[in-house]
Amino acid sequence: MTTPTVYEKLTARSREIALIGNASALLGWDQETYMPSKAVAYRAEQLSYLAGLSHQLSTSAEFGEWLAVAESEQSSWPADDERRANVREWRRDYDRATRTPADLVTELARVSALSREAWLAARQKSDYSHFQPWLDKIIALNKRQADCWGWTETPYNALLDAYEPGSNAADLTALFADLRQTLVNLLPAAMKRTGSVDPAKLRGDYPVEAQQKFNRAVAEAMGFDFEAGRIDPTTHPFCSGMGFGDCRLTTRYDEHDFTSSLFSIMHEAGHGLYEQGLRAEVYGTPLGGSVSLGIHESQSRLWENQIGRSRVFWEYWYPRACEFFPGLKERVSLDEFWTIINHVEPSYIRTESDEVTYNLHIILRFELEKALVEGTLAAADVPAAWNSRFKELFGIEVKTPNEGCLQDIHWSLGGLGYFPTYTLGNLNAAQLFRTALRQNAGLEQEIAQGRYTRLLAWLRQNIHQHGRRYLPDNLMKLATGEPTRAQYFGDYLRAKFS
Amino acid sequence: MTTPTVYEKLTARSREIALIGNASALLGWDQETYMPSKAVAYRAEQLSYLAGLSHQLSTSAEFGEWLAVAESEQSSWPADDERRANVREWRRDYDRATRTPADLVTELARVSALSREAWLAARQKSDYSHFQPWLDKIIALNKRQADCWGWTETPYNALLDAYEPGSNAADLTALFADLRQTLVNLLPAAMKRTGSVDPAKLRGDYPVEAQQKFNRAVAEAMGFDFEAGRIDPTTHPFCSGMGFGDCRLTTRYDEHDFTSSLFSIMHEAGHGLYEQGLRAEVYGTPLGGSVSLGIHESQSRLWENQIGRSRVFWEYWYPRACEFFPGLKERVSLDEFWTIINHVEPSYIRTESDEVTYNLHIILRFELEKALVEGTLAAADVPAAWNSRFKELFGIEVKTPNEGCLQDIHWSLGGLGYFPTYTLGNLNAAQLFRTALRQNAGLEQEIAQGRYTRLLAWLRQNIHQHGRRYLPDNLMKLATGEPTRAQYFGDYLRAKFS
Repeated sequence: MTTPTVYEKLTARSREIALIGNASALLGWDQETYMPSKAVAYRAEQLSYLAGLSHQLSTSAEFGEWLAVAESEQSSWPADDERRANVREWRRDYDRATRTPADLVTELARVSALSREAWLAARQKSDYSHFQPWLDKIIALNKRQADCWGWTETPYNALLDAYEPGSNAADLTALFADLRQTLVNLLPAAMKRTGSVDPAKLRGDYPVEAQQKFNRAVAEAMGFDFEAGRIDPTTHPFCSGMGFGDCRLTTRYDEHDFTSSLFSIMHEAGHGLYEQGLRAEVYGTPLGGSVSLGIHESQSRLWENQIGRSRVFWEYWYPRACEFFPGLKERVSLDEFWTIINHVEPSYIRTESDEVTYNLHIILRFELEKALVEGTLAAADVPAAWNSRFKELFGIEVKTPNEGCLQDIHWSLGGLGYFPTYTLGNLNAAQLFRTALRQNAGLEQEIAQGRYTRLLAWLRQNIHQHGRRYLPDNLMKLATGEPTRAQYFGDYLRAKFS
Repeated sequence: MTTPTVYEKLTARSREIALIGNASALLGWDQETYMPSKAVAYRAEQLSYLAGLSHQLSTSAEFGEWLAVAESEQSSWPADDERRANVREWRRDYDRATRTPADLVTELARVSALSREAWLAARQKSDYSHFQPWLDKIIALNKRQADCWGWTETPYNALLDAYEPGSNAADLTALFADLRQTLVNLLPAAMKRTGSVDPAKLRGDYPVEAQQKFNRAVAEAMGFDFEAGRIDPTTHPFCSGMGFGDCRLTTRYDEHDFTSSLFSIMHEAGHGLYEQGLRAEVYGTPLGGSVSLGIHESQSRLWENQIGRSRVFWEYWYPRACEFFPGLKERVSLDEFWTIINHVEPSYIRTESDEVTYNLHIILRFELEKALVEGTLAAADVPAAWNSRFKELFGIEVKTPNEGCLQDIHWSLGGLGYFPTYTLGNLNAAQLFRTALRQNAGLEQEIAQGRYTRLLAWLRQNIHQHGRRYLPDNLMKLATGEPTRAQYFGDYLRAKFS
């Protein structure tokens, strides 16, 4: 046996950390799907133990020593050697992990758990004051975390960078200003264009079993590999990649509206196709991992919206849906169906909003959380700030905290800097799909025939196979010739709704 | 914070090892239930990694040091201090683990995996010669393992002791000689007593969903807590305790015979009630674990056979089964039903055999595997030895290896010394149930009314709550006044079948 190189040692350790992380992912998936209720306390102990073990391996001194040696050795590697990307990303992860003191890790975990409970209690009474002291703590801990990680311009940048490597608040502000103008200008036309059909017309009786079969048929057509994945019911839909050859989607069912579970499955299967497209031979290292939330979300949004809410998609699937769901044909025509699933109207709840107003919800959150981290907004003033900015953006009055600043779980879990990645996902999805269409003549005709092989191959080639080789903006440049821009999403919406 | 005592350190480490073992148990359960097929290779890596981690923690030098200190400290503990049992069992586990060299652990795992494949291939062709070289390897590795652990009288004792602490081949030989005589004497009468009804009369149409509902109703009546457990379908039934508050049963369904899944659920729920009866406050230490296979199997057999195949049990459940399964009433009367589920007849396959002949199957395996380990029987001679001994015990000729020495998976997995625990389970079940009946006047009437609360309480009190506090034979003495004897099982069968 030859002595392993430091690169091989780093690879082995990285795979070890992934094995543990994926065992935790199964424990987490099981908790949401099949775990009996009395197991909850023990499960929490297991997850906490494995998280500690993973943190210990990720921050060990030997890992740092191997990494330093690998960094000095890489001067002799070819400039385009993909191992350089692993070394860069191991450094990124190692620095972030080692710069966070153990007491801060523990405190963030503790406060997040309690804060989530406080948020739930606040929502039950629709009373923000229950949550406010916890939001104060969350903000303070996030600021401390940002200081540990280090930042330029604003501490918010350090938090953003955790979810979207290489992004920053200044770029996002410019991007979102551009986008907001587009959205606000487009809103009246989009409402007019989609306001002619009452969405209630679609409501009917859609048995869960028929929905499951239909969803599976669509996910299979998309290319989701059910020998390497599955779908189970949960309270909230999610996608969990939990090891090579194992990616699980979940959804919930509305027996009166089959599109609810379908769009969530198309969304989660979009995430799942990314996971299933990661390279086997580098699995467990950064090269075999997903690059950022904004790129991950681009995959889910592309399938859910660019494809799933398009007219051509339903040219193929509407007749099939009518076979799966007797009565659908009598309820709505293909035109009416398209109009309903694209209905645009300002509303209070982000997760129920349409393609136009969705991003206004995100812009609002981005502005507020940035101000909270920078200290220009106090937790106590969140409801007032939320409601007044909401009125400006949407033109309607927020009446209760539950339809306002208490609606999302993210802040209560300690996640500040996460929201913007949703909009990045939407912008990236439009930009990627536009490029795919331009580079693949006849792609739209294939979609009209229910065939997505070439589209998936293009995504595999341009996004999935790269893992974390390039930072998100560079990946977008390689795939589309430009970093993320608001332009193409605007073009898409204008073409769709004007 | 005060410094933890060595006993506290041992407890914490023991719980840590249990957390990992239980994470592995979930990974294993998931593999048999819901895991997508392409995940198999990665899952094997995860299980192997966690097994290595667990072994490392179990054999660490510091664990040995803490243990030595605890052993010297316990002279100052009260004689009945239950912590003494933990120290004794930690010592037992530590010695066994540290006496097994790493290369032997790896080799046993490797050979078992390959040997299982060879066994499957041999079965496909019903050709023993494919398996024989692997059995040779398994025997050699088991002998080496026995030598590492240390033994007196016969190396087989070291293997036995792994599954049934404190047992030995000489005692078992005497016990089984006694039992064999009883069984052989009883067989003709039992065949006559149950031969009057054709078991095929029971065959009908039993939808899986109705079986699931009926099984659940029975398991709930037994006291199995579905908030701390569940039932899922698998190829082979099993019970897996995977953490406090989480015990999962599995079964398979025969749509033409509902008793197949029912008895396997009563069996597995018997195991499950033991797991659910372990003490919370010592969970993860020996005091909170099950003591041996022979005691575990006594719980499953008590519920499956002593209760589930009794006439009084069906006085309550037969009318209910007739409601769950339309047509049952017309097919068989209660008397006929009882006769069919107790049908006695010599047959080739252990797992399909009746209460009388089952233990003859075990006696055969015990004799052969003991001879294999002692070197008085060569792997090459197994088919001949099997077939001739089978003829003596059952009076029928084995015609193919699949209905003879290739039928069980145990040896291929490296498990020599395991089989006798099945018969110990049967003997213990009869002995325990007899004592429970004597100590609880009116218990049988309760069973006739579908009530098992007092029976379960008696098992909790006399078996479950003790965990590994007493060695199996001592536990039997405490519960019944005697170590395991063949007498009571013989009495039970005579009363039932004469």
